[in-house]
Amino acid sequence: MSRLLSTSSFSITGSKPASYTDSSDDETSPRDKQQKNSKGSSDFCVKNIKQAEFGRREIEIAEQEMPALMALRKRAQGEKPLAGAKIVGCTHITAQTAVLMETLGALGAQCRWAACNIYSTLNEVAAALAESGFPVFAWKGESEDDFWWCIDRCVNVEGWQPNMILDDGGDLTHWIYKKYPNMFKKIKGIVEESVTGVHRLYQLSKAGKLCVPAMNVNDSVTKQKFDNLYCCRESILDGLKRTTDMMFGGKQVVVCGYGEVGKGCCAALKAMGSIVYVTEIDPICALQACMDGFRLVKLNEVIRQVDIVITCTGNKNVVTREHLDRMKNSCIVCNMGHSNTEIDVASLRTPELTWERVRSQVDHVIWPDGKRIVLLAEGRLLNLSCSTVPTFVLSITATTQALALIELYNAPEGRYKQDVYLLPKKMDEYVASLHLPTFDAHLTELTDEQAKYLGLNKNGPFKPNYYRCWLGAACSSLGGGGGGDTAAYICACVRISSKLSV
Amino acid sequence: MSRLLSTSSFSITGSKPASYTDSSDDETSPRDKQQKNSKGSSDFCVKNIKQAEFGRREIEIAEQEMPALMALRKRAQGEKPLAGAKIVGCTHITAQTAVLMETLGALGAQCRWAACNIYSTLNEVAAALAESGFPVFAWKGESEDDFWWCIDRCVNVEGWQPNMILDDGGDLTHWIYKKYPNMFKKIKGIVEESVTGVHRLYQLSKAGKLCVPAMNVNDSVTKQKFDNLYCCRESILDGLKRTTDMMFGGKQVVVCGYGEVGKGCCAALKAMGSIVYVTEIDPICALQACMDGFRLVKLNEVIRQVDIVITCTGNKNVVTREHLDRMKNSCIVCNMGHSNTEIDVASLRTPELTWERVRSQVDHVIWPDGKRIVLLAEGRLLNLSCSTVPTFVLSITATTQALALIELYNAPEGRYKQDVYLLPKKMDEYVASLHLPTFDAHLTELTDEQAKYLGLNKNGPFKPNYYRCWLGAACSSLGGGGGGDTAAYICACVRISSKLSV
Amino acid sequence: MSRLLSTSSFSITGSKPASYTDSSDDETSPRDKQQKNSKGSSDFCVKNIKQAEFGRREIEIAEQEMPALMALRKRAQGEKPLAGAKIVGCTHITAQTAVLMETLGALGAQCRWAACNIYSTLNEVAAALAESGFPVFAWKGESEDDFWWCIDRCVNVEGWQPNMILDDGGDLTHWIYKKYPNMFKKIKGIVEESVTGVHRLYQLSKAGKLCVPAMNVNDSVTKQKFDNLYCCRESILDGLKRTTDMMFGGKQVVVCGYGEVGKGCCAALKAMGSIVYVTEIDPICALQACMDGFRLVKLNEVIRQVDIVITCTGNKNVVTREHLDRMKNSCIVCNMGHSNTEIDVASLRTPELTWERVRSQVDHVIWPDGKRIVLLAEGRLLNLSCSTVPTFVLSITATTQALALIELYNAPEGRYKQDVYLLPKKMDEYVASLHLPTFDAHLTELTDEQAKYLGLNKNGPFKPNYYRCWLGAACSSLGGGGGGDTAAYICACVRISSKLSV
Amino acid sequence: MSRLLSTSSFSITGSKPASYTDSSDDETSPRDKQQKNSKGSSDFCVKNIKQAEFGRREIEIAEQEMPALMALRKRAQGEKPLAGAKIVGCTHITAQTAVLMETLGALGAQCRWAACNIYSTLNEVAAALAESGFPVFAWKGESEDDFWWCIDRCVNVEGWQPNMILDDGGDLTHWIYKKYPNMFKKIKGIVEESVTGVHRLYQLSKAGKLCVPAMNVNDSVTKQKFDNLYCCRESILDGLKRTTDMMFGGKQVVVCGYGEVGKGCCAALKAMGSIVYVTEIDPICALQACMDGFRLVKLNEVIRQVDIVITCTGNKNVVTREHLDRMKNSCIVCNMGHSNTEIDVASLRTPELTWERVRSQVDHVIWPDGKRIVLLAEGRLLNLSCSTVPTFVLSITATTQALALIELYNAPEGRYKQDVYLLPKKMDEYVASLHLPTFDAHLTELTDEQAKYLGLNKNGPFKPNYYRCWLGAACSSLGGGGGGDTAAYICACVRISSKLSV
Repeated sequence: MSRLLSTSSFSITGSKPASYTDSSDDETSPRDKQQKNSKGSSDFCVKNIKQAEFGRREIEIAEQEMPALMALRKRAQGEKPLAGAKIVGCTHITAQTAVLMETLGALGAQCRWAACNIYSTLNEVAAALAESGFPVFAWKGESEDDFWWCIDRCVNVEGWQPNMILDDGGDLTHWIYKKYPNMFKKIKGIVEESVTGVHRLYQLSKAGKLCVPAMNVNDSVTKQKFDNLYCCRESILDGLKRTTDMMFGGKQVVVCGYGEVGKGCCAALKAMGSIVYVTEIDPICALQACMDGFRLVKLNEVIRQVDIVITCTGNKNVVTREHLDRMKNSCIVCNMGHSNTEIDVASLRTPELTWERVRSQVDHVIWPDGKRIVLLAEGRLLNLSCSTVPTFVLSITATTQALALIELYNAPEGRYKQDVYLLPKKMDEYVASLHLPTFDAHLTELTDEQAKYLGLNKNGPFKPNYYRCWLGAACSSLGGGGGGDTAAYICACVRISSKLSV
Repeated sequence: MSRLLSTSSFSITGSKPASYTDSSDDETSPRDKQQKNSKGSSDFCVKNIKQAEFGRREIEIAEQEMPALMALRKRAQGEKPLAGAKIVGCTHITAQTAVLMETLGALGAQCRWAACNIYSTLNEVAAALAESGFPVFAWKGESEDDFWWCIDRCVNVEGWQPNMILDDGGDLTHWIYKKYPNMFKKIKGIVEESVTGVHRLYQLSKAGKLCVPAMNVNDSVTKQKFDNLYCCRESILDGLKRTTDMMFGGKQVVVCGYGEVGKGCCAALKAMGSIVYVTEIDPICALQACMDGFRLVKLNEVIRQVDIVITCTGNKNVVTREHLDRMKNSCIVCNMGHSNTEIDVASLRTPELTWERVRSQVDHVIWPDGKRIVLLAEGRLLNLSCSTVPTFVLSITATTQALALIELYNAPEGRYKQDVYLLPKKMDEYVASLHLPTFDAHLTELTDEQAKYLGLNKNGPFKPNYYRCWLGAACSSLGGGGGGDTAAYICACVRISSKLSV
Repeated sequence: MSRLLSTSSFSITGSKPASYTDSSDDETSPRDKQQKNSKGSSDFCVKNIKQAEFGRREIEIAEQEMPALMALRKRAQGEKPLAGAKIVGCTHITAQTAVLMETLGALGAQCRWAACNIYSTLNEVAAALAESGFPVFAWKGESEDDFWWCIDRCVNVEGWQPNMILDDGGDLTHWIYKKYPNMFKKIKGIVEESVTGVHRLYQLSKAGKLCVPAMNVNDSVTKQKFDNLYCCRESILDGLKRTTDMMFGGKQVVVCGYGEVGKGCCAALKAMGSIVYVTEIDPICALQACMDGFRLVKLNEVIRQVDIVITCTGNKNVVTREHLDRMKNSCIVCNMGHSNTEIDVASLRTPELTWERVRSQVDHVIWPDGKRIVLLAEGRLLNLSCSTVPTFVLSITATTQALALIELYNAPEGRYKQDVYLLPKKMDEYVASLHLPTFDAHLTELTDEQAKYLGLNKNGPFKPNYYRCWLGAACSSLGGGGGGDTAAYICACVRISSKLSV
Repeated sequence: MSRLLSTSSFSITGSKPASYTDSSDDETSPRDKQQKNSKGSSDFCVKNIKQAEFGRREIEIAEQEMPALMALRKRAQGEKPLAGAKIVGCTHITAQTAVLMETLGALGAQCRWAACNIYSTLNEVAAALAESGFPVFAWKGESEDDFWWCIDRCVNVEGWQPNMILDDGGDLTHWIYKKYPNMFKKIKGIVEESVTGVHRLYQLSKAGKLCVPAMNVNDSVTKQKFDNLYCCRESILDGLKRTTDMMFGGKQVVVCGYGEVGKGCCAALKAMGSIVYVTEIDPICALQACMDGFRLVKLNEVIRQVDIVITCTGNKNVVTREHLDRMKNSCIVCNMGHSNTEIDVASLRTPELTWERVRSQVDHVIWPDGKRIVLLAEGRLLNLSCSTVPTFVLSITATTQALALIELYNAPEGRYKQDVYLLPKKMDEYVASLHLPTFDAHLTELTDEQAKYLGLNKNGPFKPNYYRCWLGAACSSLGGGGGGDTAAYICACVRISSKLSV
């Protein structure tokens, strides 16, 4: 059950629009209600269809900040790249998701949708979607039984069988595997969004049980850079400020881990006048930290003096009870990394320590001598618990999902096997290009002569497909063929090596 | 012949130590001189063996700034990993190279050395090496005939045959291919430093003519990041200041290309108070420029208003005559990219324009109406022509070369085939770790429990070998095996994805 | 009446401690209640004396972040510099104020206290103070009549007459002038905290009606720098994020005014990857903006393209209806300046525009064509309305107030006349020095030889007394006339204080 | 005599134009030559009148970067504000000075000119001025006797008596005081540029011997901010790079003093990836350093670990022999502050230490154990010795000088007394506004309504006249006594001017 709460790939907390009605007074389960939308359909199950109008307004506002999806709709007026697609989806039900769903519809797809988290559904949005004719089965505060019932209602329909899956966390995929394995015969592919879901897919693949191609959209370059470096650069400040109202200037901070997330945190805090120390295990990242102007230390060396400890390692027990014992009074401890294991919070559940909840998501842990440690979000992810995710980032994710669905649905036989794939480089670039107008950014086009000189197609991809291999040349050492094609890639690589890495 | 001047992988210009004697008065060719070092050997050919003392002091100063090589020497006191190695080298002959050569000697190797550039040899350093017993054949101001004669003297020796090649530019390798192809039977590998040399090796490989393993040290992660991002961040300021004495504050600058070099240039100029515009062809790099706070424009849109134009694309004709015609008076134009083709300098060689050399490396190109464009280094690389390369960067390169030689020399049969390789990830990390003490930087060590959790060896590598593929997962889509090992990599990747990219 | 709401010198909004009880159920007016504290005293009037324990804990937490006041308490253990002082105060009643009041008590003073704002009192804190024996008359949600009644209860006491005033907004001072003018015979001085209150004092002084010395603590260097530059650097991000969840990266922003507030806003947004334009009227500040890397424009030139408009001028009608008409869809408009006049909000109250309240403090103003402008805090101060003030800044203010009271109370006859003064430079430096330990910052001490060389006392002041002279108001303390001209300068100063320093 | 070398207010070193002819072969003293310009005049004394053409080109290039003076020329086409002025000048003779002189001529003045430094004259520029008809008496490499002879030739002319003085260092003023005191009867004022010269004027004033008004242009806001904060931000990097070719990334640096100069140095090094520590004596500046993200330490605490020590205090013996003894090997020591007393260089002249000159301006001081300290410019000002001053900064100075001359020459009787003044605020603003077009910067104009609201004139001044009061010296212009105390303050001010502003 805990998975239902934790597999979400992004936060839906944060300040909510003022107009959301509080439906807490209505205690009837949606499953027991008889509701119809204005066109007479009852193929949905939401909290209250009458909230549709409010939800519609939220969707309209979100549309304004998701220009890439709106552009896709426009381009799809002629051809419908998803004509015939029957997509079953299981994601958070938010205004942004609604924009995605309605875009898929505009591209020709039929959709049925459930929530991937029992708490995250915005009831008004679900109502608006139901009112527009989308079979949506989701409400805020589902029970575990409700959760699986909703998923089943999406899949188990007479006269309709999905041929595409859009999943966030892998529960929908898991359900079909378990209950309706034959359904995979008609399914052209799975698009998965979350780290957890991707991990489950790789396990299936390793076990030889993955029977359709799957697209891992979590690890696309664009999403990674935005979710990690750029988004964390902003959310570390937001999360700390909303919970503690602290002043950043002059504060001593230690950031554990100097990957993309750590880089984002360090850059933001340095810019706000904090003095930042970094810990690392990897000498290359360590050297980067040095060149970026951060003292590289072991946590022990600074633990007595710092005002804030931030973990971003993806590792476990990075902050131990021993560290916590040595921190100074009022030290703030929080986690921006990948799991809730980075801080050994369990070690603080001992009788001699007093816990005091001072605000939502803020605990004071008090030592016998009166020392207080300020623990945020009980060691869970600060950015998901205590700040919001900008629509712009959600827009990148949603656009990537849409393109992944289009790619898998339209790919010629044989292009994708029963394996987990990343979005082709060119589509990654396409997602990025759809977001440039937001910044009034003008891309330069290669001349024919320049494209020839670089050995590139004028429309991209501008990096080799395995550019994620940031040095294409690396691949020859992987025994990965080494044939003529590789050499061609290498030539291009070498020529443009001055701008190779993203 | 022009290659002899241009293949250098780094600059040797810049302010020279005050004490270098001017030997311009001695016009006799070194080939015509009879010289012996103090131990009676005459197996060398340098300008003047009497300059050895001066050269020795320069080497000693360089040693202080190359702690990684000194550390290698220390660790090699027990075992000699290069015992039996007979290395023939062809590189710039500078104090830093001398520290490398003497380190190779300390590791057990015998070396013979020539210069890879007819102008770059520091005669005093060559003398010091010859005095210490190194057979060095190099002087400043060689003729082309001298150049090949020196190389031949290194290779064509009675009773001594090289089994390793350290090359910079590929001339030495080329000479052996052409004159002594049989020598390759005993050669265990080639270590190549320059872009040009690496390109030649890939061509050989593609043509099926590469008959020994080769190590491309130009593209190691550590070197790339230092040569491009960090080094350019400093050298753009240095190069502009030394040539023009301009003030950066408030200046409008357009940087063409937002790869590592462009990122370094943009960051530095923004920090100094310039207003920076960026042009890009790749939407992903373009989106990064936006998020980093730069207006993304087409060159045409800002060409009339900017004070400085900097190219870093690796492309050709990025700045055309048309652009140059539209620039405002006093606009500065320079190139930080990969070749001298980025600015169409040839288009400025027309009768109506007047060229005026106002300083070394600085030309005013004057239009009929009096407008002046300030062209730096005639469009060649600003950082190589007008600023110096810090010893610290040279230290990283030299250490990488030493480790590549050790790896190729000691690799078990079959590890490397007749192909071009990158340094294994672990050695890359080792180079980085040897440079951390310079910054008094303290690396954190994984606990056993953490290493197990991450699926990593405590001593690294901390990223998969194809980490240069910054997302290991990518490789499964390359059809590159997909077997059990890949899946293992993927697991590790997914777990540490929050800190994946360098 | 509006003054009671608006004269507050800082915000008390923001996330409140979780434990604050909601006393909305208790509708009885505190004036009608009979309450006693545990020692039997009933010389107070608060919402509910039983909330004292909760309030005490909040005070204890605040004590941990106000080390300067705690240091003052410690130093006062020997002598009591406020022994005999009878202080009547009128400020916001918050945990931080409580720490100040209890410090004044520890220094020997007797205090009576009312609230300067009818909404800002934290009832639990007021209860805790009453429980400790402080005569406090304040609760959240006073009526206007309550407000003056509370003030009167502080002043009009049998057998007790104040000899010092600590005011925030000038209402207390005004009440005494109006009702008990004779009381001034025993009053040694007034310490005033707010811009409005200081302005009223200068008007009194100009009119020749100021009959005791007054200390303007609003304009101390330390407070100014912290309130403006450093605090705004953080609160602009906080305010925008809490209200809109926007992403800063890549956004185009125009900041009107490049004084301290504008400098803080620009620095923060630039650091977060926004592209920032600046407007200015003063060529010196304009040149600074250029050198700091901002394009200096007229508002008209960029109004169509920017995503955010921020006013920090201290001027009126900086953003007009004409500007608002030309802004693009979704443009965010907010004010960080000095008054609510910078944006011509009144011009938006026309029939063709629709206002939609989407969140607390966030309105969408909708044009007939569907364009929406996002107006924050209805044009009032963003940082006061939508973010919180860090305790650290409040600590500086409170320490300055305590020192000002000590100085005025202990000053020898004749040092201060019936005029408005700034805190002597040396005391300003002392406030700063008391806050350095927070940062574990170690000050260097001059040697005797160095002090002599510089002509300074080893213990300061390190700048001439009129160093603050950059704030025109300082000059009144120079004895430099004080005539009509000076007053004229002062008026101008006060009005434009948000952009005073170059 | 040493003063002749040291009183220069800016550097004239740095890379020289390539075209300057080397006139070292011509050993005849200019005083012994008979030269005429093309119009037949021989009222000048320069190295070689034939070099005029080269000099003219340099002047033309400088004109392009001094738009403010060119704008003044244009505006003066109608009226000639300096008609009748007879200016005698003593400054560095450079292309920038030439643009100033020719501007003064265009404004109606007659000028005679000598050099204020025996080494700094650019002979070609002097020749060009002589050719244009300016009586110039200056050449590179004057003897002390030549120096005073040249000055005398400017002053002691039959039929021409100066009525204005433009001085840089005070030697010209001193000469007239000593030799031709009666000349002051006709002199309307002195404009002085250098710290030293201003100091001498204040001493004269204090002694009651100043018999004409003097304008201190050194301390104008615009010049101070540019010379200190903005210029040092760039020149610290330039000076370190040109002398040592060091890499800034990751280096630990301690900056002593956090005034404007220190702020500039810290900001630049932080931006380049250095880790910066700050020392301070003033708690207010110390708190600013904290808020800006720098660890505030005592020098002793970090002296063993830092790679670079930079002094910017204006104090003496900030770096002592004891500190130097404890520095680590290769530590770089340099001075950006106000005098050559900050580093106790004399203490290094002891027998056990070896000095080795490794480059121009770079000494290695070697301890008996082999430790080397890298001392730059022998402890003199790094920015003057090892980098150049951008024309843009010189333009601000020259424009300020021109406006000061106009103001003093045209001021109505009584506006200025026999005292030292700062340029009126409005003229300071005017200098700034003349430089905005360089940045294509567009100033906003107040509406009538706004000007009234702020109580300001639409054309400025926008700050009170004594706004500059942050420089104590300003107060003399407030009529604030000018007694002994003021003078005392002023002395202190001048000495510590490098760290004056908070």
